[in-house]
Amino acid sequence: MTDRDFSLFQIALQQRATSVEALLGNLLSDRPQTGEISRPPRLMAAIRHSVLNGGKRLRPFLVMESAALFKADNLAALRVAAALECVHSYSLVHDDLPAMDNDDLRRGQPTVHRKFDEATAILAGDSLLTYAFELIASEETELDPQARIALIATLARAAGVGGMVGGQALDLEAEMVKPDEQGIIRLQAMKTGALIRFACEAGAIVGHAGLEDRERLAEYGAAIGLAFQLADDLLDVTADASHMGKATRKDAAAGKATLVSMHGIEWTQRQLVGLIAQAEELLAPFGEKAALLKDAARFIAERQS
Amino acid sequence: MTDRDFSLFQIALQQRATSVEALLGNLLSDRPQTGEISRPPRLMAAIRHSVLNGGKRLRPFLVMESAALFKADNLAALRVAAALECVHSYSLVHDDLPAMDNDDLRRGQPTVHRKFDEATAILAGDSLLTYAFELIASEETELDPQARIALIATLARAAGVGGMVGGQALDLEAEMVKPDEQGIIRLQAMKTGALIRFACEAGAIVGHAGLEDRERLAEYGAAIGLAFQLADDLLDVTADASHMGKATRKDAAAGKATLVSMHGIEWTQRQLVGLIAQAEELLAPFGEKAALLKDAARFIAERQS
Repeated sequence: MTDRDFSLFQIALQQRATSVEALLGNLLSDRPQTGEISRPPRLMAAIRHSVLNGGKRLRPFLVMESAALFKADNLAALRVAAALECVHSYSLVHDDLPAMDNDDLRRGQPTVHRKFDEATAILAGDSLLTYAFELIASEETELDPQARIALIATLARAAGVGGMVGGQALDLEAEMVKPDEQGIIRLQAMKTGALIRFACEAGAIVGHAGLEDRERLAEYGAAIGLAFQLADDLLDVTADASHMGKATRKDAAAGKATLVSMHGIEWTQRQLVGLIAQAEELLAPFGEKAALLKDAARFIAERQS
Repeated sequence: MTDRDFSLFQIALQQRATSVEALLGNLLSDRPQTGEISRPPRLMAAIRHSVLNGGKRLRPFLVMESAALFKADNLAALRVAAALECVHSYSLVHDDLPAMDNDDLRRGQPTVHRKFDEATAILAGDSLLTYAFELIASEETELDPQARIALIATLARAAGVGGMVGGQALDLEAEMVKPDEQGIIRLQAMKTGALIRFACEAGAIVGHAGLEDRERLAEYGAAIGLAFQLADDLLDVTADASHMGKATRKDAAAGKATLVSMHGIEWTQRQLVGLIAQAEELLAPFGEKAALLKDAARFIAERQS
């Protein structure tokens, strides 16, 4: 680990967030686009409420910084980043529903089903998932069809039954039958890991990286995805709700087993140090170009909210 | 109109349905595919319950027959047809949820949230939508990347905020503010029309049809999509629940305005005759090759369930 502080990373994260929010705000307007009949204003308002919420935009940042390693077209990377943020937002909207986590707050704001209604929240999530694929497939994403198809196939796998949604289903089942350690690791690799892994792999695809580099970025994504989840579980134990903008200590209250509850706080912190080292090693071949991605690994592991 | 009866059409519809069900049964197994970590068995069971339900498979039929006009690769058309059926199934699963239509029965069977639970139904729908894009994007769909991208872009638009999901949102809003005639037409073109239109256009894309033929097939799809909805509204008034395998007379009970409630049964039947004629005219350039698609138009307009 270096002594470098997070100020450069924070500035870059903020810059990327501003770009992706500007694009999303523009794309998710009430104005129908080519091939669309009309856009229902209330549905669009619910979609914007869920997406334009001041999130950190970590996944978009990972797409864009990974793409930058390969001198990728910046606008194409931005559109893929926006699409991924739509998938992330959809997953949160559906996850917050009464039948799922039944959350009232997200980033200190009412969740979509609380501010609008449950039916609108279901449709807003469905819309965002659909829109992510439309955004990547569009000719305005200036990438050859081969790269766009690879992105769509990889995203669909990361988000589907063998990835994020499958992880959410395993999480539901875990309330009935508690998983063992391997089960928890698999669940988390699917539920939160798959999309973060995709973010980094997507950057490599946008940048037309070779297969070896693409796999290297995917592995880096998997490592920081695991770190993200461990840090999240740790925060659930140590942080308070006002700091997080959402309910905390939910895992313990729900009797949910996590690696933190299984192995304790110190073990988890050692794992996080190991994952940062692994991420840095994977990025070593890219040298100084990967400095911000190395920061991202540390930021994810050490974050306080 | 011809005197031709529906027996050839029924046989062809059944054959196409058998092929698409065999493919879907195989694809939607518990066995993880390349790039997937694992598939949760309960989620997969819910998905299969919703998809493998003995549906007529009208949309897959339209994809495959439209593709056949252009001598398209049969397996590619079959995979696109299966993907579309996944989107159709997802829309039914989410539409049946308590927060939406709150239906207990679908084709005489318990709906997914009744047989499993609400959270699983939400995730099953999400999975099916995601899987549809994965299926088309996959290299096993033996089409050039350009055609696969066109299919994905067109499907996403048909299913998204300016298409099917947008139509569902307008339908929710219609419970509060009753739409006028143009509003109902727009709502229906989006809610049920967009996916049927896509089915026919998709066949043209799979068959690498020229832009003019692609537009012609899309227009044919729009005409039979409107006929489908008119016939549905008519059946809601005239059929009984045991025949339909789902609740009927829901529109009147919900005080929902339809073109049938606005103009009466006879007007609707005249519209249907006009739509059949329009569909046949659009297909005229294809001659005898389009006989089954002409049957489909009549079948949709005249169906009794």
